[in-house]
Amino acid sequence: MENKRYYFDWAASSFGNPSSLHSEGRAAKQALEDSRERCAAVLGVPANTLFFTSGGTESNAISIFSNLVRVGNNRTISSAAEHASVREAMETLEKMGKPTGVIPVDPAGRVTPELLAKTLAQYNNIRFASIMAVNNETGTVTDIPALRDIIKKHCTQNNLPPIHFHCDIVQAVGKVPVDISGWDIDSASISAHKIGGPRGIGLLYLKRGGKTEVFYKGGGQENNIRGGTENIQGALALADCMEKYASPQIVLANYEQALARWLKLINALTAIDRCRIIPSCRTELSGSGCRQSDFSPYILQAAFKDIPGEVMARALDDLGFAVSTGSACASYSPERPVLAAMNINENLSIEGIRISQGFAATNEEIDLLLNAITEVLKFL
Amino acid sequence: MENKRYYFDWAASSFGNPSSLHSEGRAAKQALEDSRERCAAVLGVPANTLFFTSGGTESNAISIFSNLVRVGNNRTISSAAEHASVREAMETLEKMGKPTGVIPVDPAGRVTPELLAKTLAQYNNIRFASIMAVNNETGTVTDIPALRDIIKKHCTQNNLPPIHFHCDIVQAVGKVPVDISGWDIDSASISAHKIGGPRGIGLLYLKRGGKTEVFYKGGGQENNIRGGTENIQGALALADCMEKYASPQIVLANYEQALARWLKLINALTAIDRCRIIPSCRTELSGSGCRQSDFSPYILQAAFKDIPGEVMARALDDLGFAVSTGSACASYSPERPVLAAMNINENLSIEGIRISQGFAATNEEIDLLLNAITEVLKFL
Repeated sequence: MENKRYYFDWAASSFGNPSSLHSEGRAAKQALEDSRERCAAVLGVPANTLFFTSGGTESNAISIFSNLVRVGNNRTISSAAEHASVREAMETLEKMGKPTGVIPVDPAGRVTPELLAKTLAQYNNIRFASIMAVNNETGTVTDIPALRDIIKKHCTQNNLPPIHFHCDIVQAVGKVPVDISGWDIDSASISAHKIGGPRGIGLLYLKRGGKTEVFYKGGGQENNIRGGTENIQGALALADCMEKYASPQIVLANYEQALARWLKLINALTAIDRCRIIPSCRTELSGSGCRQSDFSPYILQAAFKDIPGEVMARALDDLGFAVSTGSACASYSPERPVLAAMNINENLSIEGIRISQGFAATNEEIDLLLNAITEVLKFL
Repeated sequence: MENKRYYFDWAASSFGNPSSLHSEGRAAKQALEDSRERCAAVLGVPANTLFFTSGGTESNAISIFSNLVRVGNNRTISSAAEHASVREAMETLEKMGKPTGVIPVDPAGRVTPELLAKTLAQYNNIRFASIMAVNNETGTVTDIPALRDIIKKHCTQNNLPPIHFHCDIVQAVGKVPVDISGWDIDSASISAHKIGGPRGIGLLYLKRGGKTEVFYKGGGQENNIRGGTENIQGALALADCMEKYASPQIVLANYEQALARWLKLINALTAIDRCRIIPSCRTELSGSGCRQSDFSPYILQAAFKDIPGEVMARALDDLGFAVSTGSACASYSPERPVLAAMNINENLSIEGIRISQGFAATNEEIDLLLNAITEVLKFL
């Protein structure tokens, strides 16, 4: 009987529940905390600031809905180019009687310090700002630390209470340099399946850790930040992916390679008469105020004259190439709110497709994709 | 190039996102819909009434928080013995200005038709009732169809709008007969990891399907009921577990075997002087108004005189047996609200442990557990 274990805690879970006190529970808890420590080490933040969630959408929601339990007429602002999960959360806030506001983006899709400063000056009750680090449709990279500085300066100069800065870094982690501590943001959202991990697991970073009051605690797991039995296998897989893809050195090494492949793609597409890169400043850097580093080398939006994006995507799919139109999370809607926010004209928006590469893409695959596009253009 | 595929939709997901339109996306969508159909077939409900969520806690939250977007001073009532995920959701409703109410339970832990009728008569603005099918701490089975009838009668007789009946069936599925359609409930919550599946996946049943308006839609997935990239591997695993454990015939076969083992355990514990089964009517059926079928043969709450539950659980753990005190989801709190609601005296509550068996438990394991308990009682 020495080593054999008998499990009579099925009502907690069919296998060790990390919230249980017995050996199985403690082992599960240990695995969960090890995963958290590993993610924290990669991100350079204290482990007690990271909370496992079901993914980026839930992480955004938990952070943004914390505004619902703040007393007073506090306003939440977000950029016009946010992911649907943030956009919908803003609508929910409004429905619940909490005011919101929109920070416009420039034609490149960026919230610039100037645009942010203008929005901050519009209201005196802003307590929360949500601005994504990398746009999921265009790859636009936003200068988060510059925006953080603007917010801090604004609050200090006007003697206003601090503004919580939430950052959706789902498309940034593993793809572009991320420095949560250096950026000094208050919260951030991460999804495992965007860096090769499984669906159903993500992280929420909260600078204040478990001291943050959330809208709904559920069963009190994750230090009262996220209820529900902890997804151990997901947490382990996420920690693996973080170590494999998201440490600063690996991100830089992959970035260089991704950029080389992307420039090859962009240059070839630019040479195609019917192709327009969106936004145009991505290929016309000089004089546009845009730099190469303003765009993620993993995402590209391009339009082909007289071919609706959906038609182009289907044609490429027939040839074996998976690309998308907008965000998968918005594929139920024909609207392109991100492109509209960038003032991209409607015709061009309709023609837009999104090409996005992974860590293991090759130059050969880029060539084949370009061949396929050329092929499609012959017939459409 | 015929069969090889080139994947340029990493921004959607590292692998086929079911919301994408390309082959990989369509295959993922197909796998998701197949899983939904399989779960629906087991549960005997239309597939379009089932929505994949991250688990029981989230399913309860989505259903209950739909009250936040209903206009008016609508009241939500729930039983005094609900799981922490429901209890916390009620507190959130109150915080958001939506009135709530508590339906008391009898000493067996049941919401009886009489207790429900009394609560219904107390208010005229009840629009939602949340009552669990099987209690996670005591195994108490509630007569859901009888309660449904009371609610319907109440609304008809008093000319009141219908009351949404939500049922947490997390501890019922696979364990006791469940008949969602026959019970005619409006919504129900299911968790995979309580029936051998992985964490991070569950189901929400909504009788009205996608016509239900929810508090937060996220990216619009799951017919606008639950946002976030769909967890395909979780959905597949859940469908497997549903077919393996939750079809009516399998539930009945397993029930008979589980009950035989449980009666053996209960009889042996009853013979131990220092042991009290909670609630006492579970072993004193005659005259108590309780029947054997009022308790799940998978869960048992027992107290041992002068031994705090936590001490007993640790002692058994040392001998190789995993049992728990209360709910794992409430293990962060020393309080036992479910037992308090049943009017169990505080001393007895502190001494309570929960023993819960799985489908594959054996008579031999029950014997060994009983030996271990006897052993512990010699020294404590």
